[in-house]
Amino acid sequence: MTSDYFQFKVIHQSKKSRARVGQIITPHGVIDTPNFVPVGTNGAMKGVDSQLLEKSNVQLMFCNTYHLMLQPGEEIVANAGGLHTFMNRTQPIITDSGGFQVFSLMYGGVASEIKSKGTKSHNNSIVKISEDGVTFRSYRDGKMIHLTAETSIQAQKKLGADIILSFDELPPYHIDAAALKKSFDRTHRWEERSLIEHKKNPNNQALYCIVHGGIDDNLRKTSVEILKKLDFDGYAIGGSVGKNREEMILMLQNLMPHMPYNKPNHLLGIADLPSIEQSIPLGIDTFDSSHPSKCARHGKLFTENGDLNILRSGNNQRFEPISETCDCYTCKNYTIAYLNHLFKAHELSAYTLATIHNTQFITNLMKNYREKILNDLL
Amino acid sequence: MTSDYFQFKVIHQSKKSRARVGQIITPHGVIDTPNFVPVGTNGAMKGVDSQLLEKSNVQLMFCNTYHLMLQPGEEIVANAGGLHTFMNRTQPIITDSGGFQVFSLMYGGVASEIKSKGTKSHNNSIVKISEDGVTFRSYRDGKMIHLTAETSIQAQKKLGADIILSFDELPPYHIDAAALKKSFDRTHRWEERSLIEHKKNPNNQALYCIVHGGIDDNLRKTSVEILKKLDFDGYAIGGSVGKNREEMILMLQNLMPHMPYNKPNHLLGIADLPSIEQSIPLGIDTFDSSHPSKCARHGKLFTENGDLNILRSGNNQRFEPISETCDCYTCKNYTIAYLNHLFKAHELSAYTLATIHNTQFITNLMKNYREKILNDLL
Repeated sequence: MTSDYFQFKVIHQSKKSRARVGQIITPHGVIDTPNFVPVGTNGAMKGVDSQLLEKSNVQLMFCNTYHLMLQPGEEIVANAGGLHTFMNRTQPIITDSGGFQVFSLMYGGVASEIKSKGTKSHNNSIVKISEDGVTFRSYRDGKMIHLTAETSIQAQKKLGADIILSFDELPPYHIDAAALKKSFDRTHRWEERSLIEHKKNPNNQALYCIVHGGIDDNLRKTSVEILKKLDFDGYAIGGSVGKNREEMILMLQNLMPHMPYNKPNHLLGIADLPSIEQSIPLGIDTFDSSHPSKCARHGKLFTENGDLNILRSGNNQRFEPISETCDCYTCKNYTIAYLNHLFKAHELSAYTLATIHNTQFITNLMKNYREKILNDLL
Repeated sequence: MTSDYFQFKVIHQSKKSRARVGQIITPHGVIDTPNFVPVGTNGAMKGVDSQLLEKSNVQLMFCNTYHLMLQPGEEIVANAGGLHTFMNRTQPIITDSGGFQVFSLMYGGVASEIKSKGTKSHNNSIVKISEDGVTFRSYRDGKMIHLTAETSIQAQKKLGADIILSFDELPPYHIDAAALKKSFDRTHRWEERSLIEHKKNPNNQALYCIVHGGIDDNLRKTSVEILKKLDFDGYAIGGSVGKNREEMILMLQNLMPHMPYNKPNHLLGIADLPSIEQSIPLGIDTFDSSHPSKCARHGKLFTENGDLNILRSGNNQRFEPISETCDCYTCKNYTIAYLNHLFKAHELSAYTLATIHNTQFITNLMKNYREKILNDLL
């Protein structure tokens, strides 16, 4: 798939699985795939400024349109010269449509909706959902906001990320077949409208569609068939991906062979280490999630030997880095004992240093996966 | 004043005032004076890791023995190889004796004691004050801790800073003359005991005494006379320095001509910009305070044109650095509009970036003061 400003190349197809090494080429640089995409919701990764993040080998960063629309507002970002200039990031950025956050607010968050078995009462921030789009109330100032395929794409044009996402509805996990089908059909109409709006002003941006269908294999297959007829630059897998990893992997096993081979495939919102390991052989190219940085802020640090709980007793006298082989800023400069102390003293730099480590650990892990694929070992 | 591991040299005496440009030479490097000494209470500046701080031209950093004794404990720091290794700071460090924190806890903090007009009820963390020292309860685990001249110096030996402070009592601002005199006499006995303990094991450290006497000019003069008979490496000005800047400057105008000329003079706990400006011509060489970093975390950013309140309306569209002439990491990389956004979004990196700016702004200001003194303009 080629355009002036966006390309995806498969560099090597593993002989062992559907895993592939590729390159996504964007106006702000190359993303080697498979790769991890950390989340900087507000145009900033929590605790790590943009320049420091670029030193952690992060090739693509995920920002949330919903949050940026509410604060500072897409107009201010546009006046700054776009998101790259505003946050001083020179490398590629992807934004979502805002739909995910609006709808997940409605269910009080994806994880808690799944746990609630569908009994979770709805949040009243959403005022109205119609064929046109969704109307909700800003949590910041109570202002009414009307989000549609068109307004979401227009906002993403103003933010100016390299990759943008179609506007979609996030149906809950606990949904009956009829309601899922209704949401499914509307979501695909919204995606087509997103594409039409995008084509009016491509703005050197690539538009990804979002494959829906929950954990219904036939719906997932149908979704890909519908979307393949349209000219999207990449394919994200969204909607509910199941109540646990097993359900998600089963769904992906059935879905991935139907995905277009020559377009990048992104798995939305999932990047825990076991899910990455199991999804790469199925052909997933990029993974975004705030999970690694949340772990970091809770003192759960990634190592080759599993997670290190920095607050565990005994860690106050370990005068060695988190990982002897890690080349991150934190491991090059600080010991487990010092990090244990910073966490116990509630020092802000604890969160920064832990986040840098987990982020670079996972980007390094991705590099290792790419090397394995190049050698047909994965 | 010269030893193998500690020297103070006056490079230039201003013809216009008592201000002087000097150099303090320590085992971990040179401190150009006058200079600002940021506070990293827990062996870390809030929001700025040690390596990043070294890039902000900070030549001397102040850490608190009281906090480090309670967390992680001086033994752990010693096992790490001392505070420099523990926190990965290559440049000079100064620690206090712990006395200030213990006593200020008793009055609920220096500022609130002054405001209370002496009616503030005492905190019950202090169990006993005697000729020997003070017994208090750890706020972390309730453990009873006995702090004396000897245990404070021993703890500071374990921490291993380049400059350490004598153990003293902090009398409140609201104190009658008899009680102040009693505290004054005991404090000087504690300081002499600190020196005796220090001389048993100099450990390449310099020991500063602390000049006391509150705002009583005769007591301040007497304090200097007592301390001059002892072999201290430098002189800190402690105790209550008055209820406002005017009282402090009056006290310093009377005190400074009595201070030994060839030893470094440190003003404890004061580093707001007007106090620095008014104290340098009186001969103060170094200033420590957490004030600039507290201002930063509250979004009050220093500029040549006065303080910038980052949250003020209108700052969301100022696409320029905090200061066009500042060479700090924050000003080189980010705009006022982006910082305004980070503060509004409660992003952790807001505090980091603001602290870097205020710290480097003030270290740069100190450099300007040194240049002015060298040219007899101050």
